[in-house]
Amino acid sequence: MEKPKTIDEIDTPAVLIDIDRATANIARAQAYADKHGIKLRPHIKTHKLPFWAEKQLQAGATGITCQKIGEAEVFADAGITDIFLPYNILGSAKLERLKALHERATLSVTVDSRATIAGLAATFADSERPLTVLVECDTGGGRCGVQSAAEVLALAQQIRQHPGLVFGGLMTFPPVGKQEETDAWLAAARDALAAEGIDCARITSGGTPGMWGYGGSTIITEYRPGTYIYMDRYQVARGAATAEDCALTVLATVVSHPTATRAVLDSGSKALTSDTLGMEGFGEIVGKPGALVTGLSEEHGVVTLSDGATLSVGERVRVLPNHCCVVTNLFDQVYFVSGDKVVDVMPVAARGRVG
Amino acid sequence: MEKPKTIDEIDTPAVLIDIDRATANIARAQAYADKHGIKLRPHIKTHKLPFWAEKQLQAGATGITCQKIGEAEVFADAGITDIFLPYNILGSAKLERLKALHERATLSVTVDSRATIAGLAATFADSERPLTVLVECDTGGGRCGVQSAAEVLALAQQIRQHPGLVFGGLMTFPPVGKQEETDAWLAAARDALAAEGIDCARITSGGTPGMWGYGGSTIITEYRPGTYIYMDRYQVARGAATAEDCALTVLATVVSHPTATRAVLDSGSKALTSDTLGMEGFGEIVGKPGALVTGLSEEHGVVTLSDGATLSVGERVRVLPNHCCVVTNLFDQVYFVSGDKVVDVMPVAARGRVG
Repeated sequence: MEKPKTIDEIDTPAVLIDIDRATANIARAQAYADKHGIKLRPHIKTHKLPFWAEKQLQAGATGITCQKIGEAEVFADAGITDIFLPYNILGSAKLERLKALHERATLSVTVDSRATIAGLAATFADSERPLTVLVECDTGGGRCGVQSAAEVLALAQQIRQHPGLVFGGLMTFPPVGKQEETDAWLAAARDALAAEGIDCARITSGGTPGMWGYGGSTIITEYRPGTYIYMDRYQVARGAATAEDCALTVLATVVSHPTATRAVLDSGSKALTSDTLGMEGFGEIVGKPGALVTGLSEEHGVVTLSDGATLSVGERVRVLPNHCCVVTNLFDQVYFVSGDKVVDVMPVAARGRVG
Repeated sequence: MEKPKTIDEIDTPAVLIDIDRATANIARAQAYADKHGIKLRPHIKTHKLPFWAEKQLQAGATGITCQKIGEAEVFADAGITDIFLPYNILGSAKLERLKALHERATLSVTVDSRATIAGLAATFADSERPLTVLVECDTGGGRCGVQSAAEVLALAQQIRQHPGLVFGGLMTFPPVGKQEETDAWLAAARDALAAEGIDCARITSGGTPGMWGYGGSTIITEYRPGTYIYMDRYQVARGAATAEDCALTVLATVVSHPTATRAVLDSGSKALTSDTLGMEGFGEIVGKPGALVTGLSEEHGVVTLSDGATLSVGERVRVLPNHCCVVTNLFDQVYFVSGDKVVDVMPVAARGRVG
């Protein structure tokens, strides 16, 4: 297929990335990190594209964050050498891949259990380069992570017993809007380690919703935002972005208009995902206040029209999705646009890397 | 990668398809349709695999249903010739693809507006083979479809004015558990057409939740179930399947166990999707009552443990997802298994066909 010249020539559904907005988002986040003397380590889960990782590094990022080995492999293939995997890597297949990857990139990983440390220790026992291992801390986010400073200390001590591993510090995926509590949790862990003579080289936190407040942290050294490059409806709702910062939209066509207040888009859960993140609806139509995607099946997005909003069959619209990262994962390619011009068509290199 | 011999050799997360169960599900559904003298036209959105479409046709299906042209193209490439696209096809790019596809397969489509008919009519005006067009009826499902028998008649009359189009009958995606109301709606439309001398060759309904009741319909001639081949947690909750009918599971590893009641899987919304379909949780662990996936982020599935259920870090489990069709769309390949043996590794041929 020939590359479309303008948005009008793109068939729907399609993902559009406004490169001017994404570029501005990268610069703004880096400036904030630089101002506060904290390293930025962007999470690539949002864009899954070496193109943007290079831009993030050129802007001043200290490295990148990937969530899966399959993603890290794609970015290492693209020549990126400093990759953080904040994940418990378990099982012989993944451990072998991790070891092979560490021979051509500098990796760091996290653990929150003795079982994970044991697997890493056995795998890297004879490694020429030791692997840096941070301890994941559950500071209130309620996902992975140890529950106390005492557990941090116990795992750090275990890591330090193994010649193939180096204790690298603390990692958290923090609860939103609780900077002080998160700092206090991490400080207690750092102090427990210091009392035993163990240094914390890195204390790393993340999450786009909290990214304009972490500069006030008294303890973190590194921040890992992901969504900030594209932003989305959820980040606007949380106040982390304005609608004008949002770089990713889904181009859709109105395929049906069965009643006065109901229209249907050709973009369903296979294009927008069913993520609500606690919000009403699954996305809103740009420039059409009162046109909310209120229902999804796989290939249909039901729009409820209110407040005088109108749509017509065949009309093409842009939908601001709730959560841009999961949208990126559904499409084989995205369209880079500047205004109405199509600048490039980019395969989503690390799409679908589940393992 | 060498093909694994047993499930134990498969890295996680991965999709397992129990071929014995899927085969039995195909046979049971076809036997029901045959018993009631109604044609079965399975929806391939669930499996997205020509392999299974062939099995469905061999069992006696009259043809297949696809939701997008991109899917239909994949199945036509595999030699399948009778494809129903119950969708409003709009826009010059898709109309050209539809026309090209109709030259090598026998397609039928649906419309619910004059705008859609106009596009089809212009595209097929000079076609050697006319295109069969059904009218989509909103019998209470609240998605696409005309709202009244009068609208059905008006669209059927318009279709019949165009030499490239043939009016083919009525299509609905019905509300669950309202067979009588759906039948009454469709009968009124059929009668309005008959009063004008217009015959309804096909009256087609669908949906796995209603698939063990449609045999009692007084009017439908064809049924389009999709999920029935794999079944899932939602279908079990609706009584359309038992747990033992479910052929698709997600193989996952426990990567973290931060608290006594919380464990975390390596399978998040990128593996299970965030579809709840109105249920609590995002999936349940097979053989572990009391282990429910209660939270998802992209790469983490948080399991809440109750009723004495236990898990340990490194343990491998099988998750029964809420909605199997959307899971299939997230993976590049699935593993066909029989008992604990891996029979085949199958690329998901029509994955990600959004357009």
